[in-house]
Amino acid sequence: MADTVTGLELRSKVTSAGKLELSLEPVTLEAPGDDEVIVRVQAAPINPSDLGLLIGPADVASMVAGGTADRPTLTLDVPAERMGMLKARIDQSLPVGNEGAGEVIAAGANVTDLLGKTVGMLGGAMYTQVRKLPAKDCVPLKDGQTAADGASMFVNPLTALGFVETMRMEGHTAIVHTAAASNLGQMLNRICIADGVPLVNVVRSAEQADILRAIGATHIVDSTAPDFRDALTDAIAETVATIAFDAIGGGKLGGQILGAMEAAASRSAAEYSRYGSTTFKQLYIYGALDTGPTVLNRNFGFSWAVSGWLLTPFMGKAGREVVGRMRGRVVDELTTTFASNYTRTIGLAEALNPDVLAAYNRKATGEKYLIDPSR
Amino acid sequence: MADTVTGLELRSKVTSAGKLELSLEPVTLEAPGDDEVIVRVQAAPINPSDLGLLIGPADVASMVAGGTADRPTLTLDVPAERMGMLKARIDQSLPVGNEGAGEVIAAGANVTDLLGKTVGMLGGAMYTQVRKLPAKDCVPLKDGQTAADGASMFVNPLTALGFVETMRMEGHTAIVHTAAASNLGQMLNRICIADGVPLVNVVRSAEQADILRAIGATHIVDSTAPDFRDALTDAIAETVATIAFDAIGGGKLGGQILGAMEAAASRSAAEYSRYGSTTFKQLYIYGALDTGPTVLNRNFGFSWAVSGWLLTPFMGKAGREVVGRMRGRVVDELTTTFASNYTRTIGLAEALNPDVLAAYNRKATGEKYLIDPSR
Repeated sequence: MADTVTGLELRSKVTSAGKLELSLEPVTLEAPGDDEVIVRVQAAPINPSDLGLLIGPADVASMVAGGTADRPTLTLDVPAERMGMLKARIDQSLPVGNEGAGEVIAAGANVTDLLGKTVGMLGGAMYTQVRKLPAKDCVPLKDGQTAADGASMFVNPLTALGFVETMRMEGHTAIVHTAAASNLGQMLNRICIADGVPLVNVVRSAEQADILRAIGATHIVDSTAPDFRDALTDAIAETVATIAFDAIGGGKLGGQILGAMEAAASRSAAEYSRYGSTTFKQLYIYGALDTGPTVLNRNFGFSWAVSGWLLTPFMGKAGREVVGRMRGRVVDELTTTFASNYTRTIGLAEALNPDVLAAYNRKATGEKYLIDPSR
Repeated sequence: MADTVTGLELRSKVTSAGKLELSLEPVTLEAPGDDEVIVRVQAAPINPSDLGLLIGPADVASMVAGGTADRPTLTLDVPAERMGMLKARIDQSLPVGNEGAGEVIAAGANVTDLLGKTVGMLGGAMYTQVRKLPAKDCVPLKDGQTAADGASMFVNPLTALGFVETMRMEGHTAIVHTAAASNLGQMLNRICIADGVPLVNVVRSAEQADILRAIGATHIVDSTAPDFRDALTDAIAETVATIAFDAIGGGKLGGQILGAMEAAASRSAAEYSRYGSTTFKQLYIYGALDTGPTVLNRNFGFSWAVSGWLLTPFMGKAGREVVGRMRGRVVDELTTTFASNYTRTIGLAEALNPDVLAAYNRKATGEKYLIDPSR
């Protein structure tokens, strides 16, 4: 029998009794197959998309801590009205963490060249001390690059590049982005500056505007400023942006962006049309920082669409060649265009500390947590 | 100099002072060009899409009658916050009425065969006693068909056919329709029954359900019934409808339909996905019976779109061949599939009677007004 590798893994379970339980569970990995590797995970980011699986439906205010110092647990209430949409995950202990990076500590016969290398990984279940996965889901980092450098090389970089690809595929020439001072938003600015794509950044504070100004963003509008609507319309008129990507989802902001696009289009309209302008306006909702309802006042005619946007189906539609080009660019520009900033690094057990969880669950723009399970 | 033809025409004007003025203005038509005809209009329907131009932004409660019995006027207030989107029509006296039918009373040299014929017409400005237009915008009716038979041969029939064409073009196989007992909704039922397309009809009363049951509709759900959500989900699960056409626009109904589509898709899902099902769900908003905000609770994952739908851009996208086929079917089935029911016929002056206007502006399902300007 082959040697085995053991470690702890973070799990999230919704019980049929309406509780969400977070815990660290032991995992034992058999030796890797011929095309597999085992990685000691050293860095895995907490993305908003991870929080959906980790905590999503539960009421954070109801958090109760338990377990031991090494293996803490947290139990949260799930409001009854949210249980319906969780049917497919009831009583399943689910691993969490979309992406991460670490050192290859075991490699199958066909991939021994990876042994000892630091690699970035995509594939889920990354909030774990040891992870076995196909070598093809690993990207070796360059000399001098750390696990922290490679931890976020998939979700944010490919999403930001995906926005620009979507813009081109659908015939638009400029973009509006919300929550624009996020790590993702900063990457998008660097891409758009390099590619000459006009970008309108919508932020929620003067501090966030400063972050973007410092990296060279030109069009920045603050949704908390009294002249927000006029400033947004001016920026859209100047850039001729007709596609928007919205991380927030809930509330009126998405509809306000479509309204500003319509107002910008109407400035140049010669003739009255009761159905609004013929300019097609697209709003993509790709996140849910506000899980409340989306409210559309529909003061933007009939030539518009609001749609969900997700990375995986986009990559399926874009095809292998486009995705290959995107991934190549991420590797080439990992520590420049696609550099991430983490405000705090925590261990696996710390991730289940009530105060720490409350902090990273706020999803405050500019704050970003990294888990280092090897701590 | 050629003979001229005179008559009265209904006009709508928004003034810079914030008033909407309705009046009957004299028109004088010169003899038609070689490819033109002059039609004595005998029937023109009041469609919801006409009301947008006729009254749309004004406050009906503020209506003040004036003028004479033959040439009445109505003056309404336009709320200040709605003036912004009317910029392009300020102080223009605009004719109204998308479609109509009547008798050809003068014809140009190349189209003398139309003289004396009853024709259906598309082209706007139909709430008028006499209308000059290109012969190509007229469709001669068959012997025995009246102007009332041909008055609504474009907007509703082509819209209903356009829904089915859109469904096919975008890869769906069944439809959800709201305000489903309308004239348009009844046509859509007859088309779907003939073509074998499963159709889920959403109505707002038991009476409306009865109307549809009488013409052979099978899937009817009443949004005022206590079990609405479950009934809607069941009907969608049974038909596998993934595209919806919504005449209402405002409120939560559109989002509830997407939610029911998602719930139906999740019934058969084997594995939990935090991003919802992969079933793509499309909601088209084609009307604004409720001009309030659209409220989407987004309990339907990320694979969805909500878009505006309008007949004219659809026909542009569908192309000449498809539109030709659609128009041919309308002519062939004018008094069967595409028969309209009018609950009241009024004259031009009557259209400016305050009580009459308040009645047709209610847009009650099952009520439909026809204007006969020759009265």
